[in-house]
Amino acid sequence: MSKKIALLMGSKSDLPKLESCLSTLKELGLECEVRVMSAHRTPAAVSEFAENAEGRGLEVIIAAAGGAAHLAGVVAAHTLLPVIGIPIEGGAFNGLDSLLSTVQMPGGIAVATVGVGSGGATNAALLAAQIIARKDLSVRERLVADRVARKAKVLAADQELQK
Amino acid sequence: MSKKIALLMGSKSDLPKLESCLSTLKELGLECEVRVMSAHRTPAAVSEFAENAEGRGLEVIIAAAGGAAHLAGVVAAHTLLPVIGIPIEGGAFNGLDSLLSTVQMPGGIAVATVGVGSGGATNAALLAAQIIARKDLSVRERLVADRVARKAKVLAADQELQK
Amino acid sequence: MSKKIALLMGSKSDLPKLESCLSTLKELGLECEVRVMSAHRTPAAVSEFAENAEGRGLEVIIAAAGGAAHLAGVVAAHTLLPVIGIPIEGGAFNGLDSLLSTVQMPGGIAVATVGVGSGGATNAALLAAQIIARKDLSVRERLVADRVARKAKVLAADQELQK
Amino acid sequence: MSKKIALLMGSKSDLPKLESCLSTLKELGLECEVRVMSAHRTPAAVSEFAENAEGRGLEVIIAAAGGAAHLAGVVAAHTLLPVIGIPIEGGAFNGLDSLLSTVQMPGGIAVATVGVGSGGATNAALLAAQIIARKDLSVRERLVADRVARKAKVLAADQELQK
Amino acid sequence: MSKKIALLMGSKSDLPKLESCLSTLKELGLECEVRVMSAHRTPAAVSEFAENAEGRGLEVIIAAAGGAAHLAGVVAAHTLLPVIGIPIEGGAFNGLDSLLSTVQMPGGIAVATVGVGSGGATNAALLAAQIIARKDLSVRERLVADRVARKAKVLAADQELQK
Amino acid sequence: MSKKIALLMGSKSDLPKLESCLSTLKELGLECEVRVMSAHRTPAAVSEFAENAEGRGLEVIIAAAGGAAHLAGVVAAHTLLPVIGIPIEGGAFNGLDSLLSTVQMPGGIAVATVGVGSGGATNAALLAAQIIARKDLSVRERLVADRVARKAKVLAADQELQK
Amino acid sequence: MSKKIALLMGSKSDLPKLESCLSTLKELGLECEVRVMSAHRTPAAVSEFAENAEGRGLEVIIAAAGGAAHLAGVVAAHTLLPVIGIPIEGGAFNGLDSLLSTVQMPGGIAVATVGVGSGGATNAALLAAQIIARKDLSVRERLVADRVARKAKVLAADQELQK
Amino acid sequence: MSKKIALLMGSKSDLPKLESCLSTLKELGLECEVRVMSAHRTPAAVSEFAENAEGRGLEVIIAAAGGAAHLAGVVAAHTLLPVIGIPIEGGAFNGLDSLLSTVQMPGGIAVATVGVGSGGATNAALLAAQIIARKDLSVRERLVADRVARKAKVLAADQELQK
Repeated sequence: MSKKIALLMGSKSDLPKLESCLSTLKELGLECEVRVMSAHRTPAAVSEFAENAEGRGLEVIIAAAGGAAHLAGVVAAHTLLPVIGIPIEGGAFNGLDSLLSTVQMPGGIAVATVGVGSGGATNAALLAAQIIARKDLSVRERLVADRVARKAKVLAADQELQK
Repeated sequence: MSKKIALLMGSKSDLPKLESCLSTLKELGLECEVRVMSAHRTPAAVSEFAENAEGRGLEVIIAAAGGAAHLAGVVAAHTLLPVIGIPIEGGAFNGLDSLLSTVQMPGGIAVATVGVGSGGATNAALLAAQIIARKDLSVRERLVADRVARKAKVLAADQELQK
Repeated sequence: MSKKIALLMGSKSDLPKLESCLSTLKELGLECEVRVMSAHRTPAAVSEFAENAEGRGLEVIIAAAGGAAHLAGVVAAHTLLPVIGIPIEGGAFNGLDSLLSTVQMPGGIAVATVGVGSGGATNAALLAAQIIARKDLSVRERLVADRVARKAKVLAADQELQK
Repeated sequence: MSKKIALLMGSKSDLPKLESCLSTLKELGLECEVRVMSAHRTPAAVSEFAENAEGRGLEVIIAAAGGAAHLAGVVAAHTLLPVIGIPIEGGAFNGLDSLLSTVQMPGGIAVATVGVGSGGATNAALLAAQIIARKDLSVRERLVADRVARKAKVLAADQELQK
Repeated sequence: MSKKIALLMGSKSDLPKLESCLSTLKELGLECEVRVMSAHRTPAAVSEFAENAEGRGLEVIIAAAGGAAHLAGVVAAHTLLPVIGIPIEGGAFNGLDSLLSTVQMPGGIAVATVGVGSGGATNAALLAAQIIARKDLSVRERLVADRVARKAKVLAADQELQK
Repeated sequence: MSKKIALLMGSKSDLPKLESCLSTLKELGLECEVRVMSAHRTPAAVSEFAENAEGRGLEVIIAAAGGAAHLAGVVAAHTLLPVIGIPIEGGAFNGLDSLLSTVQMPGGIAVATVGVGSGGATNAALLAAQIIARKDLSVRERLVADRVARKAKVLAADQELQK
Repeated sequence: MSKKIALLMGSKSDLPKLESCLSTLKELGLECEVRVMSAHRTPAAVSEFAENAEGRGLEVIIAAAGGAAHLAGVVAAHTLLPVIGIPIEGGAFNGLDSLLSTVQMPGGIAVATVGVGSGGATNAALLAAQIIARKDLSVRERLVADRVARKAKVLAADQELQK
Repeated sequence: MSKKIALLMGSKSDLPKLESCLSTLKELGLECEVRVMSAHRTPAAVSEFAENAEGRGLEVIIAAAGGAAHLAGVVAAHTLLPVIGIPIEGGAFNGLDSLLSTVQMPGGIAVATVGVGSGGATNAALLAAQIIARKDLSVRERLVADRVARKAKVLAADQELQK
């Protein structure tokens, strides 16, 4: 079965900040095409990838970038697939620039933006899975299990603290 | 056919700021259940709505709120449907509070956040349509038409300016 | 005697940032129920706890959370007890998101917000004690002693510096 | 019966921004001593007022100020009564300065801060009432009614929108 | 003589905010190709324009956009001509988003960013002229005259005030 | 000769951040009374100090505080001496809160605010000396020497870099 | 008697925002030399003015500018007189840029910065008077009267409100 | 051949933050005059340098400064050469102050501002080279090679990740 999710990052140095995205996808049993491509340094690769994504069987594209983070927006301009934007934490403004560059898209081209930081990367994976789950009940079941596990972890921490 | 999209707002006073969302949905031929419910004043209504949403045939929930905007996050905590958050513009901080309250969700519960302002509301509609389009080709076709129309409008403005 | 104060935190990892709250309560001779519960991962536990809090003899609830910090607001929506919100420091925006998510509540549901950082956690404890002191003169006496001690510490530091 | 709540403002020009606080107190049947005093222009009046407040029967003090908003903090330094701070909206930074000046108090002197804007002023009234309700069940009953009314208003808006 | 400067804007609605740019270019005797094109809605038009710009005789490209302002960065990715970015004022964040989206480019693709507001648009024109003046002494002369005129205006205002 | 400058700090922990202030005063041959006093924990000490300062021969008061930094404003409210405010760097907002709490004083009570960080502390010393120099030519001479030394240091760094 | 205070502004359009500065100086009986000069458009006028200021009998210079507000810093670099900086409100960032450009001076050249807005302009006048009052007791007396008047105004507002 | 680019910095301590600028210039085969001069401590050196720059054969000036970063603006006021401003990262506000102080120049004197951080310093070098390349085809060729190398690096990282 072909991969349904792609995770694009603007620079290979972003990879460590995306660990929670990749591990969450793995736990949900979702394979993911991981790619490095830059809206500014390899714009042709980006537009070509985005234009062919749907035809290649992808269902959702996650794009992560920092600073003047244009990657998610540029990808979204070249596809009708839902595009999830992860604003990478770091740099002088610690991700405020990447958040605003990702989320404040003009009307017409949407980016589904998640938070800056490790929680945001996790949530990009969950959001991708939630979209795919609309067509694939097995993914939905694993999302149910993920919720149950997260709930159990909080309840366990609560019980441990009571002792 | 049952409605596949719900648009929730925390207060009826948010309605004028959501006009571009509603008109975009209409142009895409998508019916939408429009509801006023508050994460703080009617929390039971919110959790009940969110828990029953999938069973009632909804595919995507859009939630709009201002200030300490908890609505989208609370909805997302009670459903596995994709939840799109619109941070309402206005108030002393003009929407920076609603943006951060909507997008900075902890890992585990995702909200697909769009921008503050009229463009963001438009994009919430488009994003909802893009998710539904993964299962419904007729929606995809209307999205193609929407893109073509937006492109044509820019090209026309460009030509008009050349004269 | 039943405990009159509860301290809720969204995640067990917040505990180290709440040390000054717990130690201040201890110095004031106030017992405290410490709980981990999440507005997003265990919403039912939160609403149940908040709804039963007054009946169980609690007088004040302190709720601490980071990021899109909804915990205090959600608790406040389910109780008439005074709710004190501690915005947890940390993350990409260092607590600006948790401050705005906690303090900018819509009219109707109030959260008594303290500052981001260790001083804020201390002040949450003092504020809880000040509320309880309205009914319990022994707590008031210990607050007087706390003030005297803080004053003495500043005066001693001043004297030491003069040497 | 003596008044249990005082509302202090740094300047008479703040009065229009406190309307929702005063009307909410009135709806809750709570009388309120309304005073103009300035931490900077009449500091002696402020410290004298704060030191005598408890003895005069006050239970809660609400202090509202804008800009470098020192009023709530200075009041809190002179009393053990709970002090609620309203950061006034306006000025070049629209209340960000008053919020930070009010909420970021050093450990030792707490100010229960509410949001910037009309909702914050409403919530200051509710918070004061919630504190008083710990000793006065009739206030508690009126708070229950307030919640019911707010809930009903949202539900009514929702129903009206469905038509 | 072919035009040496192009001014691109993401939307025709940006035109009124670029008046000072156009009038300054006119005063400096510089013709300018004014175009509407969008990094998101007409990406192919943008990359095609940028790739052909140098060959068509352009020397500098000015690109203006608001919100998640990607236009200048995308243009810069497709040309070696100097690209000047004008972050358009407006929207919920009044141009902070467009400033950060324009200026915080990753190393490798530079955008010469000017300020948000009418002064920034003026300065984009002057900067373009300063670059062209390195090859065209007549432009340099007009820049000298512009400086002299601006200086004279300040001196005249000073003298008028002395009276 | 009595000391003409006092440096007040809200907490002894601020001392290391004021080193550049103290060393600059020393280099300018100016003695300084260094005191720890808190606008919130020892308000009586602060108002008493400020009211007596002029009578005791002080000419300028420097006040340093962090967070909701009220110290300089409270001192200024009790004296007609020029008061210089140093917003202490640190805490969750790194000094933005102390800057705004210090500088945004309401019309009527002025605080001469310097920058956040080591440069600001240095400049508080220089500013105090510049004020005293209006009456004491020997201080003026030492300020001239300070400027000459700073200039020489930059020129030397420049020359060293040329090699 | 020669004027002891100069008020410089970067542009004549700043004049309306400096009304409260001029009226306060007038009420204090202080004459003021009002000048328009720009750090960028008439830099020679600025440095010449600053270098000659002390010799001409000036005691304090107030400099007001907006945006990248360099005027106060540039003046301070050319004189040992105390320089007071007024960050002008307005523009896209409403004065945050002018505040930071004025107050964050590097160690070595100090600017006594007042707040953004009308209160700040008033305080610049008061601060100038407080510095001059160190040598001129008649100015000190008028400052005492100013404080008394401001206090009386607050007390009168308070009394009026009690009715 | 005389050097065509000068890199000015406000303090020698800025040098490590400019490494990527210097190494990029070197890779592009461009010699650079590196100077330490301060808008505030050696203003005469700055204005003299700027006024003579064009006559000495310079084509572009890069100016880097932190905090209230006036250097680029002051240089631009004294020359018609294009001036590129690098806002230095660091200090309490991590470069937000230097960014705003550099980019928000008033209409009339332009500074071509690049981003805060290492990428910005790199881009200052590229921008300088792009301007020079308008007259010197050999520089243009090296810019082409630089782009090719950057593109190749991203593609290589992408391929490596696929394995």
